[in-house]
Amino acid sequence: MSIYKKMDEYLEKNLDQSLAELSTYVAQPSVSAQNLGLKECAQLVKGMLEKRGFKAEVMSTDGAPVVFAERKGKSDKTLLIYNHYDVQPPEPLDLWESPPFEPEIRGDKMYGRGVSDDKSHLTSRLFAIDSILDEDGELPCNIKFIVEGEEETASEHLHEFVTQNMDRLKADACIWEFGGVDHRDVPMQYLGLRGICYVELSVESLGTDVHSGLGGSIFPNAAWRLTWALTSLKGVDERILIPGFYDDVIPPSARDRELMAKLPDVADVYRKQYGVKEFIKGLKGGTDLKVEEVFTPTCTICGLTSGYQGVGQKTVQPARASAKVDFRLVPAQKPEDILKKLRAHLDAQGFSDVQIQYHGGEPAARTDPDDAFIKIVVDTSTEIYGVPMEIVPMVGGSGPSYPFVHDLGLPVATMGLGYPETKAHAPNENIRLDLYLKHAKHMARVIKEFAK
Amino acid sequence: MSIYKKMDEYLEKNLDQSLAELSTYVAQPSVSAQNLGLKECAQLVKGMLEKRGFKAEVMSTDGAPVVFAERKGKSDKTLLIYNHYDVQPPEPLDLWESPPFEPEIRGDKMYGRGVSDDKSHLTSRLFAIDSILDEDGELPCNIKFIVEGEEETASEHLHEFVTQNMDRLKADACIWEFGGVDHRDVPMQYLGLRGICYVELSVESLGTDVHSGLGGSIFPNAAWRLTWALTSLKGVDERILIPGFYDDVIPPSARDRELMAKLPDVADVYRKQYGVKEFIKGLKGGTDLKVEEVFTPTCTICGLTSGYQGVGQKTVQPARASAKVDFRLVPAQKPEDILKKLRAHLDAQGFSDVQIQYHGGEPAARTDPDDAFIKIVVDTSTEIYGVPMEIVPMVGGSGPSYPFVHDLGLPVATMGLGYPETKAHAPNENIRLDLYLKHAKHMARVIKEFAK
Repeated sequence: MSIYKKMDEYLEKNLDQSLAELSTYVAQPSVSAQNLGLKECAQLVKGMLEKRGFKAEVMSTDGAPVVFAERKGKSDKTLLIYNHYDVQPPEPLDLWESPPFEPEIRGDKMYGRGVSDDKSHLTSRLFAIDSILDEDGELPCNIKFIVEGEEETASEHLHEFVTQNMDRLKADACIWEFGGVDHRDVPMQYLGLRGICYVELSVESLGTDVHSGLGGSIFPNAAWRLTWALTSLKGVDERILIPGFYDDVIPPSARDRELMAKLPDVADVYRKQYGVKEFIKGLKGGTDLKVEEVFTPTCTICGLTSGYQGVGQKTVQPARASAKVDFRLVPAQKPEDILKKLRAHLDAQGFSDVQIQYHGGEPAARTDPDDAFIKIVVDTSTEIYGVPMEIVPMVGGSGPSYPFVHDLGLPVATMGLGYPETKAHAPNENIRLDLYLKHAKHMARVIKEFAK
Repeated sequence: MSIYKKMDEYLEKNLDQSLAELSTYVAQPSVSAQNLGLKECAQLVKGMLEKRGFKAEVMSTDGAPVVFAERKGKSDKTLLIYNHYDVQPPEPLDLWESPPFEPEIRGDKMYGRGVSDDKSHLTSRLFAIDSILDEDGELPCNIKFIVEGEEETASEHLHEFVTQNMDRLKADACIWEFGGVDHRDVPMQYLGLRGICYVELSVESLGTDVHSGLGGSIFPNAAWRLTWALTSLKGVDERILIPGFYDDVIPPSARDRELMAKLPDVADVYRKQYGVKEFIKGLKGGTDLKVEEVFTPTCTICGLTSGYQGVGQKTVQPARASAKVDFRLVPAQKPEDILKKLRAHLDAQGFSDVQIQYHGGEPAARTDPDDAFIKIVVDTSTEIYGVPMEIVPMVGGSGPSYPFVHDLGLPVATMGLGYPETKAHAPNENIRLDLYLKHAKHMARVIKEFAK
């Protein structure tokens, strides 16, 4: 019989109460992209933490405030939990089956904007803490919360906040905002995020658009200048041509390949889901595809704009052209370094007329798959999910984990209640109530085992 | 004393009457792009021609009807006059100082949509015929009119109409729809138009846009495919790389260069008007710039569209990308041939995933600057404008003159009442009344001299 029986019973008995708290939390709009309800939501979070005996503070930044909270526990160890209280915009509203800020339980799911990403993560974690306090009357270790309000707008001020509050954030391990199960209901442990360097390249070649009958032979064309500059960045073979771009790349280890090999094949899923006819670089599937997907840096054109974009023909030579370009970075590439190399490359290639606007970046960050804390998080899942978590050493996306891994020096574990149909960022965002309970049970175990 | 004194007096005395006819003509909306008032306007034109004793007919095409008319004259020679009764859309309406379809004389100008392009050209030519009929009671030669209704939408059915009515359109010379004076009030004789081949290149690489954290390393990117395909078309040195593209090019003759050298320099005008910092191909100005502007074929990107085009960053890998590309052609390149070579080139370069949509084309057409008919048009201007017309052997734009030059085998002369501030295609389109009278006088002389 599980030593967690009493806590599990508490969680099963009080689920409705925690869902009611979640419901109140989701009903408070907090859209960072629209600067909507952020201060109110931060105060709400502060109250939720204080209710559990945390000393909580709403700390201002140059953007949305950060809620920081801590409560001492029995052991000297400190667990830091990162969440965010902001959510994506709810639009398009007409696609929602129930209003986004009026959370509703239908069947075994709860619907609402932010219910999955990531308000339920915070309340289910507080629920886990409730179950521990109910049994022990105290926490087994110190717990700190950092709950920011700009995650959905690229966490612009988080890195600075972390480096300015190193002492307060000091900890031994960190739980990340999200996590979840895959299509087989197997919980996944995502241990790395690629970095990113997002730029806009633009050219202005003339004071005004010109009739193409006039300018075509003798005036510089912004769209051509941009096209040529872009082609200088990456060849048809997908090799990035910026000198020094690959200098700092740490290739995947044998252990990484071994972990990737254990994960399900994705080729058929991608063919079906995204209409891929052929993968690039001659990839066919298997481990090679999975490794390439996350362990290589990229240079992606996210958008192109110039001149006439309507129906039919307009004979115009455009004065302006621009491209959005996103570099995904792998350890140990740095966005500032890539930016510098990009500028130097464009200048050297004769494209000093191409302007670079930096839209932000973050280096990649990874946690060692064999870290002792990760082992706790992975192993404690077995009793709840029936299987241990599967370890994904790296994913293709990016996020603000760098300051936690590299400034605070923490192992960062993911766990949570995402699932393939959770519709984060989309209409009818939802969570499964069974996964809500499971995450709370899992979290209670992680806290107890970590404290030992 | 001019032998045209009596005709000139007629024109001076009856100017108001002709302007009243022009006013009625402009008041009839005839917007081809909006299919507005075309049939009514064709009937109006038919009536205007019949009033001068022409046998006129409204002939249907697959688009707007064409008005064809002829009247026999004394000599065997036949002059064909090409005009169009359709006009540009009047929008934006709020920028007009008087309503576009309520023509108004203010000071020495008449304002209204189509008044310059090219309704005044038709009425002033009919006015010239009136002056001849007043003096002689008959025409000195056969005159035919072809007045189409699709010039402002690329004359889609004109070429076919000409080839299907070769016998009826048979003539010895042709007067083009427009002409005018430059900023010095010097009348210009434009003798050639470049051809055009307008295409849209598009790529669809996925069934849906994908998060760039996922697709960047392993999925084909439509924007990259398009960028690379475009770069394969033209190098940074502006040389077009499609094999055989330059095969049929007839370079400018020594006579062409001589005529271009006589024209005013354009470099400073272009620098000021269009904000050109540097011309391409190392051009600085002078005859080289003028010759390059009109005698070389081009490959111009008119527009680029793909993925995210809004503010800031969106991390998306686009499924679709497209470009509008306009090739200006010189004699004796053919749009169908260029289209075929473009497809073959893209296939050979590995870009068979790039689709080509053909938006239409027309070959270049030129009239010999030393043709006897051109000499008549140029020389007769001296008495009216104080100077002979200046000959421009070629201009950079395109137009439907090819079937007149190559199918009907005619010399095509331009003459008319355009001037730099005429605002064709723009709000407050207008004509100068002095140029209206001058064009009628000039036209009467051309008809009389041509008939000899």
